[in-house]
Amino acid sequence: MRNIVIKIMYDGSRFHGWQFQPNGISVQEVVEKTLSGLTNENIKVTGCSRTDAGVHAIEYYFNFFSNTKIPCQKIPAAFNNHLDTFDISAIEAYDVDENFNARFSSIGKRYTYKILNSKTPNPFYRNYSWFFPYNLDIDLMKKASKFFIGEHDFSAFMAAGGSQKTTIRTISECLVTVNPEYKSEICVTVEANAFLYNMVRIIVGTLCDVGTGKISPDSISSIIESRERKNAGMTAPPEGLHLFKVNYPEKTFEQELN
Amino acid sequence: MRNIVIKIMYDGSRFHGWQFQPNGISVQEVVEKTLSGLTNENIKVTGCSRTDAGVHAIEYYFNFFSNTKIPCQKIPAAFNNHLDTFDISAIEAYDVDENFNARFSSIGKRYTYKILNSKTPNPFYRNYSWFFPYNLDIDLMKKASKFFIGEHDFSAFMAAGGSQKTTIRTISECLVTVNPEYKSEICVTVEANAFLYNMVRIIVGTLCDVGTGKISPDSISSIIESRERKNAGMTAPPEGLHLFKVNYPEKTFEQELN
Repeated sequence: MRNIVIKIMYDGSRFHGWQFQPNGISVQEVVEKTLSGLTNENIKVTGCSRTDAGVHAIEYYFNFFSNTKIPCQKIPAAFNNHLDTFDISAIEAYDVDENFNARFSSIGKRYTYKILNSKTPNPFYRNYSWFFPYNLDIDLMKKASKFFIGEHDFSAFMAAGGSQKTTIRTISECLVTVNPEYKSEICVTVEANAFLYNMVRIIVGTLCDVGTGKISPDSISSIIESRERKNAGMTAPPEGLHLFKVNYPEKTFEQELN
Repeated sequence: MRNIVIKIMYDGSRFHGWQFQPNGISVQEVVEKTLSGLTNENIKVTGCSRTDAGVHAIEYYFNFFSNTKIPCQKIPAAFNNHLDTFDISAIEAYDVDENFNARFSSIGKRYTYKILNSKTPNPFYRNYSWFFPYNLDIDLMKKASKFFIGEHDFSAFMAAGGSQKTTIRTISECLVTVNPEYKSEICVTVEANAFLYNMVRIIVGTLCDVGTGKISPDSISSIIESRERKNAGMTAPPEGLHLFKVNYPEKTFEQELN
């Protein structure tokens, strides 16, 4: 039996998140239905992350076991032709080792979070950013962002509902940047070995509380150390969040036929 | 009576173009309804351009006459609050001279046209680009683009249905660029003193015919000189087209209070 990985991207605006759930259409449900139709098998997939409703993926990996004879290089087009939505697109497919698991084999992820900091909304950013019409001091946000880097217990930046064994995570990059061609667009980039539930959204909300002066950049370390959610800032809304990159060990996709 | 200009942006995906028409919702209809509600007057507006269904505007100007007492700096927020859609957003408003006309006072416009040149579609570009999955030779397209610059009779690049007195236009810029951070995104920028009906879309379609080798870059001048639509290339679809900038004479918006 083959273990197949597909890399997709999706616009999360109209989905109730990645994971299958009874009250709305999830990306997982659409993907499984499409693959089951394509292979004439009952396909169940394992996704790399449980993104919330409204969250987007520039890059998302899932894997599944199948006896299909479709070669990997033909899977993306076949998958896209079978899809009944334009909100998902398959980019690449790979045959991988039987032990590969899209979630547990991941060694890191990078998220980007877009903030639209302008007085008037922008229709093109509506579903893809947090519309934040208040003044933000970007220098303070940049200063604060550095305190997140490193290995920490991020309990203070976790929403209730997570099911992790440990709350220690290592953030390798935390950056606040302004789009030079469109200064209203502020991007927060966070890369870590793994994330707690809502961790990026609480980091971004806290950075915006720093930008408006509610929280001092110098207090970030003590907020982290407190391990108390109530000491951190607000939770930024889902629509600004994009899963940007998923890292796997070298040679994972060596059998790529695409 | 005041002559008021509002600068808006709009996502054209769900509109049947700018101009009022009986068979679908136009941007003009929504704008007039919103302003009439806001001012308790029967407002009719003059737009800077008649964009087609599916075409977007990063910057669009219209003007209207009104006795409203709302100061200009408060108009964008009041307008946005009255709108029943998120697809339009007012950015700025100005009081202008009574002779100002958003269409006829314009001295130039810049359009950008996005092409998504990749084998698989991108959900985030679906409504905002032409999905073009065939190989394009960008260098040939760049070479061809230069032949459009200057004052020419652009009859060969005009769809039937225009109502202009002359078909002579001056293109000051015609550029083909590749997004360095996302090489599948190709952008064609065209700036001119004015445009004929579907002119940008026929230029872009012709440039793609150059990119695939159907038309030689060196034949662009003779296609222009022929003044025959049949000699030019295809008409690119509307969704990739963005009205990017509208130029007016200096000091037009000197009374800006915003």
